[in-house]
Parts: sequence; structure tokens; C-alpha cells
Amino acid sequence: TSSSSRKRSGWEIKGSKLSLNTHNRIRNIVESLKIKPNPEKPMIPLSIGDPTTFGNLKAADETMKAVLHSLESGKYNGYASTQGHEIARKAVAKYSAHQRPDGEIDANEVVLCSGCSSALEYCILALADRGQNVLVPRPGFCLYYTLAQGLDIEVRYYDLLPDQQWRADLVQLESLIDENTAALLINNPSNPCGSVFDEKHLRELIAICERHYLPIIADEIYEHFVFPGSKHLAVSSLTTEVPVLSCGGLTKRFLVPGWRMGWIIVHDRKNRLRDAIVGLKNMCGRILGSNTIIQGALPDILTKTPQSYFDGVIDVLHSNAMLAYKMLKQVRGLDPVMPNGAMYMMIGVSIERFPEFKDDTHFVQEMVNEQSVFCLPGSCFEYPGYVRIVLTVPGAMIEEACSRIAEFCDRHYKKESRNFIEHGLLDCDDVAF
Amino acid sequence: TSSSSRKRSGWEIKGSKLSLNTHNRIRNIVESLKIKPNPEKPMIPLSIGDPTTFGNLKAADETMKAVLHSLESGKYNGYASTQGHEIARKAVAKYSAHQRPDGEIDANEVVLCSGCSSALEYCILALADRGQNVLVPRPGFCLYYTLAQGLDIEVRYYDLLPDQQWRADLVQLESLIDENTAALLINNPSNPCGSVFDEKHLRELIAICERHYLPIIADEIYEHFVFPGSKHLAVSSLTTEVPVLSCGGLTKRFLVPGWRMGWIIVHDRKNRLRDAIVGLKNMCGRILGSNTIIQGALPDILTKTPQSYFDGVIDVLHSNAMLAYKMLKQVRGLDPVMPNGAMYMMIGVSIERFPEFKDDTHFVQEMVNEQSVFCLPGSCFEYPGYVRIVLTVPGAMIEEACSRIAEFCDRHYKKESRNFIEHGLLDCDDVAF
Ligand SMILES: Cc1ncc(COP(=O)(O)O)c(C=O)c1O
Ligand SMILES: Cc1ncc(COP(=O)(O)O)c(C=O)c1O
Repeated sequence: TSSSSRKRSGWEIKGSKLSLNTHNRIRNIVESLKIKPNPEKPMIPLSIGDPTTFGNLKAADETMKAVLHSLESGKYNGYASTQGHEIARKAVAKYSAHQRPDGEIDANEVVLCSGCSSALEYCILALADRGQNVLVPRPGFCLYYTLAQGLDIEVRYYDLLPDQQWRADLVQLESLIDENTAALLINNPSNPCGSVFDEKHLRELIAICERHYLPIIADEIYEHFVFPGSKHLAVSSLTTEVPVLSCGGLTKRFLVPGWRMGWIIVHDRKNRLRDAIVGLKNMCGRILGSNTIIQGALPDILTKTPQSYFDGVIDVLHSNAMLAYKMLKQVRGLDPVMPNGAMYMMIGVSIERFPEFKDDTHFVQEMVNEQSVFCLPGSCFEYPGYVRIVLTVPGAMIEEACSRIAEFCDRHYKKESRNFIEHGLLDCDDVAF
Repeated sequence: TSSSSRKRSGWEIKGSKLSLNTHNRIRNIVESLKIKPNPEKPMIPLSIGDPTTFGNLKAADETMKAVLHSLESGKYNGYASTQGHEIARKAVAKYSAHQRPDGEIDANEVVLCSGCSSALEYCILALADRGQNVLVPRPGFCLYYTLAQGLDIEVRYYDLLPDQQWRADLVQLESLIDENTAALLINNPSNPCGSVFDEKHLRELIAICERHYLPIIADEIYEHFVFPGSKHLAVSSLTTEVPVLSCGGLTKRFLVPGWRMGWIIVHDRKNRLRDAIVGLKNMCGRILGSNTIIQGALPDILTKTPQSYFDGVIDVLHSNAMLAYKMLKQVRGLDPVMPNGAMYMMIGVSIERFPEFKDDTHFVQEMVNEQSVFCLPGSCFEYPGYVRIVLTVPGAMIEEACSRIAEFCDRHYKKESRNFIEHGLLDCDDVAF
């Protein structure tokens, strides 16, 4: 029988492969935990990547006022053009001038999206076909996998090295590249590492891309989010050879994740992306981007929010980082890695020193149950053997959390539990795998 | 050589198939027109589906105030949960109670999305795999094709019949169904037809779905947008057998298309969608939905916007429809179809009576160039031989536009131009194809 003469014979409705393969690793792992926080200790969720959760970090008055004006103008209720209102794209182009020191960014090179997530989705989907692959960092933000997997775009992990300030293992990275590699994804500053690449390392990455004709997708949502002493450099500012799609947005720096305002800036100085840019803009026609009230507010948000506001936020994060690092560095079995930016810290756990727990996930679960402190297991970022904490909580809370973590570790630490204890995580870089 | 040993040898970067096959038919056709409006006549764009363009139709004060309160509360800057804030989903569930007269809609059956476009995207992508097909109306909104095509989901067109108030041709529709048909998409009230299905016809469509075990995707973005004398019935209110995913949002009824607030309501009374619902919810994790300030405002928007406001909007549309219908009905070579809802009217064009123009697209182009009146050609909706006008313009403008259309047609109408003139569009239903 021909396909058109066959009929369904019952309600066997299935979800599509795409939808069922759209996995959120964090949610899956968190939901698999058997969590019952200790009722005697108030919960401290160091797991939540939403900086607004605790009330200590708030959007700037100027940011809020800009939206108020946009709303009250009544001018931003209608549809924007597919890429977003031009005044908003112009504002982003100007705000992002440092990404291209030797030329101006044109409003046409800016695409507004529904959050940085949507920006990343369009970049990955516009560059990679089924069967192709994209290189993404490990440890890394799980969304890249979420976005690619269901479309049969393979995600290949290049390693970040904890003892080298989370720089990429260049040799291993380069060995992953083949003719089906569609892009190198860089997340700088990094979630979950809090690392910030220096110029030398960015140039090394660019050189690899030049050798292999690879465009870069730069997840720079934590742009400018660096601690004193570090400097954030946009990778696009260092090359005219390699095309770069830079993904950013208001989410983190302006502390408004729910507003879903993200963008893509196309840096393609030698016109190498050609129809990929057509494709990228086509993708925007699928759901017509981001909220127009926020679009209308973008010019004011991006120019009027004062530097003192940003400095204040960085201050909080930096002092939390220093406090947590100092406290946790003294805890046996833990090895925190001091971040240089973003809002997170990774902490190595010598899991063989905690023989009651079979892995990072188990460790995290029992820490909630005993101490009501919730960290995310490194497995959420493809990196077992570590846990990630957020640095956005109030200072007193991070101090209390670290004391409890110390108490938990002291209680469960075993000096000699297994044979290989002498060569545990603290001494050997790659044992975590 | 194995694939991993091969390397790219140059910057031959291509856009992905998905992105290059994400076509926007309206944009493509409009961009292909050679338009130079008559400088002596002010432009009247009857092409724009944005009801806020002309300033005569505005969001209600209550709607605007709701957003103001949400913004000022400072409570809605953070991330919502993947499906959207619960208070917002509860409000949508309550607002949509008429969609399920024999039971309550649960907040968990509501998913908030970035506009109705995004709602439609998730429904289509969660139900249909590559190689499967979805039945969509012709004439119909071109987004369905835009969303499906790039993913190799086939779009099969079922015909709507202009002389039967744009009811579906049930026999032709049923003949399209095979075992790879994943869903029937119904758009009611319809863009571009302005038609509203009655209960009998909806039951006929449901019966087909029951026979073939097909879920329904109901694009009900024009829900409640019906003229006096007509009644909108949600298809989900008439069946407990057939699963219905109803897509709606604020866009049209509340006149805020730029806000990108849409939703899916899952009606699956017999639990037939099973993992398709898991898939649907997974899809929301890709970009994390809609703006949270609007989410926070939803409870007030949906309860406080007064009926008089909606009535006022319908009044404008209905009187424009009557005026345009009356005027255009008298024009030789045109055959307007009176709408019962939504914001559009389709007008048949006996193109063989206008031998200077080769098709609807050419006809539209020359009308802009002579009369500065811009209608969308039916080809934008897979329906050559018609043009679509919007009814959202100020009354005086629609009157002026219709006079100019009449003038244009009178000037170019030829009584005897071709052989088949006696059996032209006006007399024969299917000649438009
Ligand atoms: C590295 C990274 N990229 C992208 C995103 C997503 O940003 P948005 O909320 O703007 O979609 C996040 C959010 O946590 C992130 O950590
Ligand atoms: C039939 C139909 N469905 C869906 C949409 C998209 O709605 P939204 O702007 O909420 O994405 C439109 C917009 O014109 C439409 O006409």
C-alpha cells in the first residue's frame, strides 16, 4: 500500500523527536534528586542562576524608568520589524562599539531576540545542519546541548582546564574539528567557571578558527562582568578574519532576566557568512523576537544606567567570591577555583575523600538534606567532581552557607577511605573525568 | 579517509537548510513588488496586519495600567518558570474557561509563549516529525508554512470555499490525510478570510479528526473577534475525544502585538497526547518564553479590560467591513466576501477582466503605483485571484481607499478581453486555482 492510503488506527500520538530530545540537563538532574531540606536550617539555594532572587541585587532605577517612559509613550505596542526596531538596534550597535574598535557597527548587523537563549538558538541553528557539529566548552552552560541535540546537531565538548584558569585545552579542542564542524562556541566570561579569557588565549582560539575556517559563536552575556584586575575583551575585537556572532543581552548586567531581551551582533568583516546571515534573519521571522516596550526603552537603558550601578553589582559579586574562596579553601576535600568574573564559582570536590557519597550529585543531595544548602552538581555542566555556587546572594548568606558547607565536609571527610586517596582531585588535574 | 580526518579547505560557510528554508511568503512577495506610490496621493497601506499602525485603535487604559503596576511592583524582573509564572497561567486558564465548559482548565495546562507565533511553533514542532505532515487552510496565514518547511514537515493545504463562507472542503480535506498526518490546523476566526466557523462545521471537522485519530492545533488568536450576529466557538468546547492545542494571546484582542504574549492551552481530556505534552513543555525550555512584566500584568489585563472596550473595537471593524463591502460589491471585476470576524476581508479579482495585469500580484503592484493603495495579493496566502485588505484603518481612510480601488478597477476593467471571460471568477468557484 502506498503511504497515502494507509491510515492511523488509534490514538498513538507521539511527541516529536525534536521535542523529546530537547533536554534540560539541569532540570533533569535537579528533579532526580531526593531533596528534603533540614527543617532546622533555613534553605540557602546557591543553585539559582537568577541574580534577582534574593532581593539584594536590583535593576537600576534608570533601567526601570526607561521602561516606564517607553510604556507611557504608547509608541511601542505595535509589531517591530523582524530584526527589531531600528532605534533599539542602533542603541545596541553603539553600546557594543568596543566589540569592533576599528569600525562602526551598523544597526543592520544587530538582531534583537527573545533573550540571549534565543540569540544562541538562532546562531546555532543558522550555522549548523543535521549531522554537523558545534564545539562547546566543558564545563559549560547546558543550553547549548539543549538547543542542538533535538535537531541532530552534535555537540562536541572541548575541555576547560581548572588549573589553568579554565583556559581551553587547545590541543584537545583542535583534535575535535572535522569538515562537519560548523562553529566554535566560546562562553566568555564563563558560566559555570567565572573565568575570563585573556587576550593571548583569545588569539590562540582565533588562530585555530582561522586554520580551520570556523566561525565563532561568542556567548558574551556576561560581558563587562569582570572583577577588578581582569579585563573582558570581546573576541570580535581581535580579528577581522574570523566571522563572529556575538550573543548578548540585558539579562545579567542589567539584572532583568525575565524581560527576555537578547541580541546577536554580526561581525563578518570579510563577508564570509554570506547566506548564513540571510538564514539568521529568516530565523527571526519565526516568532518575531522580543517585547517592544523593552525595545523602546533600550536607548535609555543602555546610555543612562550609570557606571556606579554596575560597579556596585561587581563589588557584591567580587567580595562574595573572595569570602567564599577564603572560607572554602580551608575546607579539607574542597578545592575552590577563584573566578575573575560572571556570577559563579566552581569548587572541586575530592569525592573519594567522601566515601559515603557516590558522586557530585549524591554529595549535593545530602548537603541539602543536612545543611539546607543547595549547590548545583558539576554534572549539570558535564563536569562531575565539582559543584557550582552562585555569588549573587547577600554577603551574610554566603558566609553562613560556607560555614555550613565546611561543617558538612568536616563531618563526612575521610582521611583514608580508598586506595587512590593519595592521588585525589586536589593533586591531579584530570581525575575528575 | 574518515570524516574526522577531513578538514575544511576554505571559508565556504553556508547557512543551514533550516534557516534558508524558513521563508516568509508575505515578505518575499512584498519585496518582489516594484512599488512607487503615486506622489499625488497619500499612501493607504491596507496591507499591514498590525492594528495599531493607524492610531485609531489603541490598547485599553486598563491594559496599559496593568503593565504599569506590574512594572512598578518590581516583582517581575526575574526569570519565570519555564511554562511561565503560575499566577499568569492561572489567569489565562480562568479567562479561557469557555474553551472547556464541562470542567476547569488547570494552570498546568497553560503554557506561556513569546507571541502566538511561538505557541504555533511549539505545537507544530512538538507534534510533527520530519517527513510527517500537517493540514493547514488555504487561503491561510503563511506562518504555518514558515514554521514547518525548514524542518521538513510537509504542509498540506485543505481548501476553504469562498462561496460557502470559507468553510473547509471536507472531502478534499479528508483525502489529504494519511498515516503521516500529525495534526489538523484550524484557524478560526480566520486570517485572511475573516470567516467564523459555526458549530455544525466545527463538529464536522471534529468528526474527521476522530475518524483519523488526529489532534487539532487551533489557532484562535482572533477568538472573540466576531461581528454582531456571529458567535465564536472554541473547537475544544465541542469535544472531549479529540485533543486540542489552542493557541491564543493578547496580540489582537488587546491590540498589543509587540508585547509578544501568547499561550497554548492543552485540552487533552482522554490523555491521548501523553509524551507530546512532555515534548511541548520541553520546547519552552529552549528560550524561556515571554516577557515577565507582561506576565505579571496578565491577571489584571484579562479581568479588568472592560467589555465596552472590546465592543468599541468590534464596532470599528464591523462598520469598516460593511462600508468596504458595500462599496466594493459595486465595482466591476471585484467580488468581496463579507467577513464575520477578525480584521480582514478577502476580495475576489476577476483577473481576466484586467488583461493588463498578469496576476493578483501585478494587479496589487499597479494599484499602489497609481492609487497609493496597498492590498496584499492572495498569493501571500496561497490563494491567487484574491486580494486581502485590513479593516483596522480609520473609517474615512477605508472610504477613500475603496473609492480609489473603484477608480483603479473602472479604469482597467475590460468587458471582453479574453475568451473565457464569460466564466470568470465571479461565476465559478474554483477558477481561482
Ligand atoms: C552562559 C549563558 N548564556 C546564556 C544564558 C541565557 O540568557 P537569557 O536569560 O538572556 O536567555 C545564560 C543564563 O543563565 C548563561 O549563563
Ligand atoms: C492567524 C494568525 N495566527 C497567529 C498570528 C501571530 O500572532 P502573534 O503576533 O501573537 O505571534 C497572526 C498574526 O497576524 C495571525 O494572523
